[in-house]
Amino acid sequence: MSDARDKDPAARRPRRGPRVRATHPAATSFITRTIPPYEMLSEDLLATIEEQSDLILEEIGLEIRGDADALGLWRAAGADVDAAGRVRVPRGLARAIVRRSAPATFTQHARNPARNVTIGGRSTVFAPAYGSPFVSDLDGGRRYATLADFHNFVKLAYLSPWLHHSGGTVCEPTDLPVNKRHFDMLHAHMTLSDKPFMGSVTTAPRAADSIEMCRILFGAEFVDRHCVILGNVNVNSPLVLDGEASRVIRTYAAANQAPVCVPFILGGAMGPVTTAGGLAQCFAEAVFCVALGQLERPGSPAILGNFLSSMSLRSGAPTFGTPEPALAYFAIGQLARRLGVPLRCGGNLCGSKLPDAQAASESANSLWPAFMAGANFVLHAAGWLEAGLVMSYEKFVMDLDQCGAFHVIGAGLSLDENGFALDAFREVGPGKHFLGSAHTLRNYETAFFDAELADNNSFEQWAQEGAHDIVWRANRRWRTMLEAYQPPPLDPVVGAALRDFIDERKAGMPDAGY
Amino acid sequence: MSDARDKDPAARRPRRGPRVRATHPAATSFITRTIPPYEMLSEDLLATIEEQSDLILEEIGLEIRGDADALGLWRAAGADVDAAGRVRVPRGLARAIVRRSAPATFTQHARNPARNVTIGGRSTVFAPAYGSPFVSDLDGGRRYATLADFHNFVKLAYLSPWLHHSGGTVCEPTDLPVNKRHFDMLHAHMTLSDKPFMGSVTTAPRAADSIEMCRILFGAEFVDRHCVILGNVNVNSPLVLDGEASRVIRTYAAANQAPVCVPFILGGAMGPVTTAGGLAQCFAEAVFCVALGQLERPGSPAILGNFLSSMSLRSGAPTFGTPEPALAYFAIGQLARRLGVPLRCGGNLCGSKLPDAQAASESANSLWPAFMAGANFVLHAAGWLEAGLVMSYEKFVMDLDQCGAFHVIGAGLSLDENGFALDAFREVGPGKHFLGSAHTLRNYETAFFDAELADNNSFEQWAQEGAHDIVWRANRRWRTMLEAYQPPPLDPVVGAALRDFIDERKAGMPDAGY
Repeated sequence: MSDARDKDPAARRPRRGPRVRATHPAATSFITRTIPPYEMLSEDLLATIEEQSDLILEEIGLEIRGDADALGLWRAAGADVDAAGRVRVPRGLARAIVRRSAPATFTQHARNPARNVTIGGRSTVFAPAYGSPFVSDLDGGRRYATLADFHNFVKLAYLSPWLHHSGGTVCEPTDLPVNKRHFDMLHAHMTLSDKPFMGSVTTAPRAADSIEMCRILFGAEFVDRHCVILGNVNVNSPLVLDGEASRVIRTYAAANQAPVCVPFILGGAMGPVTTAGGLAQCFAEAVFCVALGQLERPGSPAILGNFLSSMSLRSGAPTFGTPEPALAYFAIGQLARRLGVPLRCGGNLCGSKLPDAQAASESANSLWPAFMAGANFVLHAAGWLEAGLVMSYEKFVMDLDQCGAFHVIGAGLSLDENGFALDAFREVGPGKHFLGSAHTLRNYETAFFDAELADNNSFEQWAQEGAHDIVWRANRRWRTMLEAYQPPPLDPVVGAALRDFIDERKAGMPDAGY
Repeated sequence: MSDARDKDPAARRPRRGPRVRATHPAATSFITRTIPPYEMLSEDLLATIEEQSDLILEEIGLEIRGDADALGLWRAAGADVDAAGRVRVPRGLARAIVRRSAPATFTQHARNPARNVTIGGRSTVFAPAYGSPFVSDLDGGRRYATLADFHNFVKLAYLSPWLHHSGGTVCEPTDLPVNKRHFDMLHAHMTLSDKPFMGSVTTAPRAADSIEMCRILFGAEFVDRHCVILGNVNVNSPLVLDGEASRVIRTYAAANQAPVCVPFILGGAMGPVTTAGGLAQCFAEAVFCVALGQLERPGSPAILGNFLSSMSLRSGAPTFGTPEPALAYFAIGQLARRLGVPLRCGGNLCGSKLPDAQAASESANSLWPAFMAGANFVLHAAGWLEAGLVMSYEKFVMDLDQCGAFHVIGAGLSLDENGFALDAFREVGPGKHFLGSAHTLRNYETAFFDAELADNNSFEQWAQEGAHDIVWRANRRWRTMLEAYQPPPLDPVVGAALRDFIDERKAGMPDAGY
């Protein structure tokens, strides 16, 4: 695929709408890390994990259930495919297929080119949480999500300088028929935001609809040559890829769009209870899916995903922000770099029912290793609560601050003359303070990241102002943000074409709850 | 110094009292990291920081105010000392002094040898927060700390498997005269706990009292040959070491005990507003102090400290858990390793007034980089609230869970046959679950870290149980812990000798409020 803009009308459209809101000098359309990723394991140990992963693919294999074309692709590639749909892949083959043609880095284009994101290499892209049936906020409590909520979260993600991506199913619009939700979700991403987004993955025809809408937004020729949409596809771990999932992967790949291939492994249930085993399985399943996309269309973009969760010994419930997935992140980051494909990790994951300190600790314990592992696409970077069942308005804006901080960490230390400030030491000397020094005045405003929701006032002032916790401030914050929302301009011809497409497709099918 | 136990009576005393409470297989008397520290900067850039630090020491220098002996030591070592007490150190000299004799690793002995901690190298030791005038809890709110609070926190630290150290001034016993507090604080550490501890640093005679009490507890000969106490000494940044602080450093060093040398730099006030400058200053000041200890007694143990905080642009207040100190931690971790001395970092630091999500995010954003930087001694690992003004009972036990998690992260991945679980894949195969597999049953109980205060029950069950947040659970937790407290046994002869010493010393001086 080529990233050079071509003669497609969408590409020639001038830059419009608000640029990334520069609330901080660190705000950028995506993070380009100048600090290296954390290298936890030696090359020897990484090779050992690859071998274990190969062993799983060769000896146990994956089952593809009900997609003869996918089985045919694997058979043609040299895998052993039996009558039950079990695909046993000779060791090294899946990784070789990926290495041969999958791009290490690609651009996902946004309708506003200033919002384009690079996925892979030293870049990190933050996207909102995905897939929750519920929403919650301080006033309204926990309730089923609606399209109105969906709109709100697309707007909030658009307004934040710290999210680079509009995400996908930011919450389930449960007030719409299941078989038509994707139209309204895509329409919201395309019209209420100008950041890049994700499409439907629940069935192959819905994936195709999503891509078709992109052709209207970007132009068909442009879409065939550039990545404009991601599809987040879960493996039915352990070791099963149902036919719908494999067709969705192939649908995105065939259109030169990027499937995000994500084994979903709750250790002890969908995978072994030991982290190394879950890691080897996760890598095997993800590589298998990325390879399938390459077999469908060599050179199409893809992201290697992983979702490894631990389990509470007391309740058997999935747990998040625990140390075992952190270690797995570090390892899979290294494996993805060895393989040469972009990596997805989960962001601010947590199990807490409330946006309290449990939620914040767990989230940080997930985002830190994701970032240090070198994750290129961080899904669930904002809003995730209650093991993903809930998209929380307050948690969303609290997480934004955390995403913001990683812009500064990713940028690293400025070790230049101004950074070292020798002139300040010369001016100030021992025992004096730097507050009024020329160096301080020159650098004060850009020196420190200031989390919007952190209260650092004195105890007395804070008490006088009501002694509020961060959730209270977060509640005011997201309401203020929504009040200030203005949609980015959209070519009315494109807007009408999208509307017509949706109306026609909806009219052509009865409502369905599946 | 020698770590071999010798013929001192204290060394021959049999192991007594409860061992580290094994609530989790990861619980150990200190963490030995099998994962490598994070290497952010190249050797070239580290050398650049050392050069800047040397430049500060050579051109600006440090002032020692009112300690002629310290000035004499520096003059004899080759520094330029002027009449005003300004010490200008030829470039490279301070680091050379440290390299020549400071131990890279040493053992701090506890009165229960099972609690001995290794400080340096791949070890990490967690100690409680230090120095707050206030305490708070959910029921009693925020109030001045008393000796009863001090006792409570020593007990809680003793009871936790995740803290390896009893700390020092875990809170200020403000109900006691300032000049006599150290006796009661040391007595609490020595009698209510059997973990290693820290001594007084407010004046040199109080430091000497602290060491004298150790001689009663451990035996004088043992103390002269082994590290049994740490003293946390702050530099009067920028670039001033007051005579009391320099005498305290020399008092600990002369007794072969370990000063923790900690520049306290709020960027923009006590140092430049840019991180690189604060880092170079911090390193210069800390190396200067560690070197002073070596000049006093070559080979005595020491810890290189740092306390770099950022500032709120809105209020000018110090901020914690922000990205700039995180970057500084990574760099200073590398600098300490190059120098070959143990490193102290701050742990769960935060600015929040409440143990809410602000506190938890900030704390994690401080503990993560401290741990990944390879910090050997993590002060403020539990309880710190409100920029250190408050020791919070609930935050204390919440932080314990976070310290626990790093035991698992530090232990790294088990990449052995059991870890890879190939037998489980063979048993289970595609599409089945691992819950009942032999591998799961064999590993279930030790597989995952379970944070005590995390609630991972279903929403319904959690709601039925009262829909509590983590602070509520933390409140129950510390109360339950204190109820279960039993003091570790102490030789009654030693106990009486300590009591006699304190009574005599207290009787010999009038109460004073300074």
